[in-house]
Amino acid sequence: MRLGMADLYDLARGCAFLGSGGGGDPHTSLIELEEALGPSDSIELIDADSLADDAFVAPCGWIGAPTVSAEKLPSGAEAIRGLRKLESIVGRRADAVFPIEIGGSNGLAPMLLAIRAGVPVVDGDGMGRAFPESQMVIFNVAGLKASPAVLTDDKGNCVVIDSADNVAEERIARAVSVVLGASCHLMEYPLTGGQIKATALRGTVSDALAIGRGIRISRESGHDPFAALFAALRTSRQFSSAGVLFDGKIVDLHRETRDGFSMGRATIQAFGGNSRLEVEFKNENLVARVDGVVRAVVPDLITIVDRETAESIVTERLKYGQRVKVVGASAPLALRTPEALAILGPQAFGIQTPYERIELLNHWEGGA
Amino acid sequence: MRLGMADLYDLARGCAFLGSGGGGDPHTSLIELEEALGPSDSIELIDADSLADDAFVAPCGWIGAPTVSAEKLPSGAEAIRGLRKLESIVGRRADAVFPIEIGGSNGLAPMLLAIRAGVPVVDGDGMGRAFPESQMVIFNVAGLKASPAVLTDDKGNCVVIDSADNVAEERIARAVSVVLGASCHLMEYPLTGGQIKATALRGTVSDALAIGRGIRISRESGHDPFAALFAALRTSRQFSSAGVLFDGKIVDLHRETRDGFSMGRATIQAFGGNSRLEVEFKNENLVARVDGVVRAVVPDLITIVDRETAESIVTERLKYGQRVKVVGASAPLALRTPEALAILGPQAFGIQTPYERIELLNHWEGGA
Repeated sequence: MRLGMADLYDLARGCAFLGSGGGGDPHTSLIELEEALGPSDSIELIDADSLADDAFVAPCGWIGAPTVSAEKLPSGAEAIRGLRKLESIVGRRADAVFPIEIGGSNGLAPMLLAIRAGVPVVDGDGMGRAFPESQMVIFNVAGLKASPAVLTDDKGNCVVIDSADNVAEERIARAVSVVLGASCHLMEYPLTGGQIKATALRGTVSDALAIGRGIRISRESGHDPFAALFAALRTSRQFSSAGVLFDGKIVDLHRETRDGFSMGRATIQAFGGNSRLEVEFKNENLVARVDGVVRAVVPDLITIVDRETAESIVTERLKYGQRVKVVGASAPLALRTPEALAILGPQAFGIQTPYERIELLNHWEGGA
Repeated sequence: MRLGMADLYDLARGCAFLGSGGGGDPHTSLIELEEALGPSDSIELIDADSLADDAFVAPCGWIGAPTVSAEKLPSGAEAIRGLRKLESIVGRRADAVFPIEIGGSNGLAPMLLAIRAGVPVVDGDGMGRAFPESQMVIFNVAGLKASPAVLTDDKGNCVVIDSADNVAEERIARAVSVVLGASCHLMEYPLTGGQIKATALRGTVSDALAIGRGIRISRESGHDPFAALFAALRTSRQFSSAGVLFDGKIVDLHRETRDGFSMGRATIQAFGGNSRLEVEFKNENLVARVDGVVRAVVPDLITIVDRETAESIVTERLKYGQRVKVVGASAPLALRTPEALAILGPQAFGIQTPYERIELLNHWEGGA
């Protein structure tokens, strides 16, 4: 499959939904892609099955606080400089690139790099959504190594991390990204084609594309975009169950940029009632409680969307008074194993609530 | 010249004095050296003039807070792992190693590395004392590049920094060192023999050795160690003027580990009088005021020593009630140029006092 600019707009919309509030606003990535992609150009999206077992695949993305990346524009050379450095370390050219996380702008990051490097993008990702810390990735769950990792910024700084373990890699990369302005490009978990095939969350680029396309087409044709969203999720490769958790207006918002993360919580009040939903976030939305009762918890997806257009609102764009629906969706099954939950479940965020599947916490009408 | 273990004890004493309160307590470095150096082994100390212009010389040292390195013991492999990584980047073996700073334990750091790597140590350094930040070095004053820099820790983490400028290198290395426990080995400013000859502060290893030896011999023979200290400085290659700034007892001490530095101030009260000297430090002692009047300011050296033995007391070992003399000494001339002062003078530390030469601020009796 080849993706043109029209596909990338749909992809951005789908990635924003899968970001669970994080991963960065895809808007600035789209501006970069518009500049980089000629009118007749396209990006090759390949299935993991087409990779040779010994292919060299380079996952990539951005590390930092979305509150910063929304305002600090990239130079455009970060990713290709990082890839070239990684290639010089590995000793060969990359055969393909890959989103380390499909959620938010990071789902688009490999598209720009694919254009610059002239390589295809593998259809899949490492997170099936967005997560705030880089060790919260299926490759770490599978015991693969984050190193060598290459961090680059807009000023020409380049840092190569060869870490003792994957948590140290996250901590080092995070500290460097904070010093360099809280928005850096990160190549990590250099993988073989065999490792991608064995561990990656496959098909999530296609899933995001279908979500974004479904919402757009339903809006253009005057249909309910939420029905289209849920239909796309129901027929997706990685996401099965989804529905509306809450419908209301944002009445309270706490947000700060701390230790390189966007931290905070939003409170949404139901229309014509006293019921309230509270969402806690650390870059991504982590837990949603309605009147104190948990209705969704990480790694299941919690995304706040415009209640008319179903357009996702990333945490750094939340505003007092916005009229929103809070949508929940089940995480990919690979994120729900005990091994995965130990690394990216509620306890990994200091949330005391034990993980419970979103489809058991809700009885959705109109959901999937 | 070859240095045996007896020389290293003298060297450690001299480095402690030149540390101006910082650079880390040489005690733990001595323990490592005792383990590494056999009874008949020695380390070759060479003059910079013996280096070929195209020789590859690797400066090294430790970055972090001395309050931490006093308690967190190294694994012993940090330096050689860093050197091997740097050599693999540069594409050749190092011909010699070199102390990036002569002050404190960093003056001994290349000795251990020289044993492990089987190379000589060049007689000289980049700071002529100790400074808290790595861009405060004569090589930066001379416009040389800190990158590639290699940071290693005791856990096996290795970070290669290719920075846009030398201040970015310090900020990145500092942030990584904080994350990794505030005590890491750092190879930086990889230089040619020609660059060393043109810019290094030459002979400072010999100077430190002479200071330490002078103090020891005078004590062993029942003479005044302060007279020996000042005589050694007077005949040194880099230090000309020195004397006692104050004599008294520590009556107040503020100290905290902040942003990876040991920050604080000490107040010393004169015996039999109300006169007080206050010293501010950031890892190193930066400014000394007697009753509010500046008597010494960075880059001139300010070292607090035991008033009987003339043994230096690094800032992290200062204690209430210690009976001390505060000794001042002139910085190497190369640190007193306007270009150098812009990088490592009082304004670089946010101290409003303009730099004034220590020999003009004091009329020493018994000093040099």
